[in-house]
Amino acid sequence: MASMDQIDAGGNINSRVEQDKLKLQDKAGHSLPNLTEKEFRSDVYKMNYPKRGVAVIINNRSFNSRTNMGERAGTDVDAESMHRLLNILGFEIIQRNNLTAEEMRLILQTVAAQDHTDNSCFVCIILTHGDEGYVFGTDREVLFDDLVAPFKGNKCKSLASKPKIFLVQACKEPEFQEEADTGMEVESEGETIVQKIPTEADFLVVYSIVPGSLSWRNKGNGSWFIQAIAEIFEKNYQTLDVMTMMTRVIKKVAKDFEQNAKTLFLERKRQIPCITSMLTKDVYFKS
Amino acid sequence: MASMDQIDAGGNINSRVEQDKLKLQDKAGHSLPNLTEKEFRSDVYKMNYPKRGVAVIINNRSFNSRTNMGERAGTDVDAESMHRLLNILGFEIIQRNNLTAEEMRLILQTVAAQDHTDNSCFVCIILTHGDEGYVFGTDREVLFDDLVAPFKGNKCKSLASKPKIFLVQACKEPEFQEEADTGMEVESEGETIVQKIPTEADFLVVYSIVPGSLSWRNKGNGSWFIQAIAEIFEKNYQTLDVMTMMTRVIKKVAKDFEQNAKTLFLERKRQIPCITSMLTKDVYFKS
Repeated sequence: MASMDQIDAGGNINSRVEQDKLKLQDKAGHSLPNLTEKEFRSDVYKMNYPKRGVAVIINNRSFNSRTNMGERAGTDVDAESMHRLLNILGFEIIQRNNLTAEEMRLILQTVAAQDHTDNSCFVCIILTHGDEGYVFGTDREVLFDDLVAPFKGNKCKSLASKPKIFLVQACKEPEFQEEADTGMEVESEGETIVQKIPTEADFLVVYSIVPGSLSWRNKGNGSWFIQAIAEIFEKNYQTLDVMTMMTRVIKKVAKDFEQNAKTLFLERKRQIPCITSMLTKDVYFKS
Repeated sequence: MASMDQIDAGGNINSRVEQDKLKLQDKAGHSLPNLTEKEFRSDVYKMNYPKRGVAVIINNRSFNSRTNMGERAGTDVDAESMHRLLNILGFEIIQRNNLTAEEMRLILQTVAAQDHTDNSCFVCIILTHGDEGYVFGTDREVLFDDLVAPFKGNKCKSLASKPKIFLVQACKEPEFQEEADTGMEVESEGETIVQKIPTEADFLVVYSIVPGSLSWRNKGNGSWFIQAIAEIFEKNYQTLDVMTMMTRVIKKVAKDFEQNAKTLFLERKRQIPCITSMLTKDVYFKS
């Protein structure tokens, strides 16, 4: 069915739209492909590009013995849950297991170099060990900011002004590994965390943990954080925006902890995921 | 008008509610005053306690000459705008100007030690110079986390499970101060920022700046960040939740920058505020 713009004969509206696009490119200093002035001013990201977009899952389970980092039992369940969710949401999924630091950097650089003009957004899910500001390849650490950098507006113009979402389940390898009867593994404990955050609009980074708390991973069922995302997004993506769903994820993880605190060994420690948002609009995945 | 609970004769329902409260206290490890099981499980914070709550505004304009930090012209306009907004939202406002680092720590410690049982939430607005992880008193810096610490769940039980919101307009004093014809002052430029974030649920921290960008303060009109909060919250607080309004603040600041970029001297630098959320529910200020 023809839209109002197309009905208008003679190309006046169409050329107006072209003019708006041009102006926006000038103002922003980088291209804003396929965005009209109206779409630019909207409070909701345009999500009806021809394709949903690419989602990268990096799933690191086994680490080089030199690193002294243990196997991340349960992470395959997390990867599978995210695969299922991203499939429902219509993403083209690229999953890589057990990547070295350099391979992690390369796969993201390669994806960022692709043409995302027809894509609505980008998602990256990183499941690994982590440290302050770093996540781990199978061989060594890589600066989280180095993984994000290729997606910044001036580097990846076809994703400029589109939401770029990074979900990180990555915690410091504990000095000592403790295991309770429940089969829970403590992923981390740290007094402080140094967050390296992207310096640009339209990024959302959600970490599985904040300083001074613990991240829980169940050997059979995956991590509370990733499993909460899977459950809450699958149930609500047709009606709620991403920030609202993420707030419910935080609530679920906090609640799950409280319900299990008695059976675990550390009552005062709790995992609270942390949302760092520079999104400028609401993100809806509804189809 | 009597509620269903009260209509039920004999106290069964009431004692059930009491029991729920007790259970929640046990699970959480700290008191959850006046919260029933239903309120605890809701996706929206209970905001109908007898009072809205306390809001602290710390407004630092003039700094000790030893610090080499310049006067923050325009900050009084910001303080006034926040005073007006917080008044509309029903807060009991405590404003302090030109506090030393120790005075900042003390006022927040004092407020945290008060009884907030009848309050729905807490807000703190800090207008000052800042550095990585620090904000400045008139004499020296103070760790941002030290200001937040007294409000954590185990320290301030009467605010446990209630939203605690910190808004920070604070940027690094520039090495050199540059001024454009527009009357804009550049507050900061830094390649990285170290965020010290609270380790607990129910905190929301919104910074006026992220690394590698600039924070703009107009001598006559206040800062873009604070002015955007004033405008967007006043216009939308009856219908939108805080995270959604904050996303619009980010959009407005980003857009304002782009509209002014041509008349300013640095096109590639932009201010993007950053939301760090550990909220577990949506916050609505509607009355």
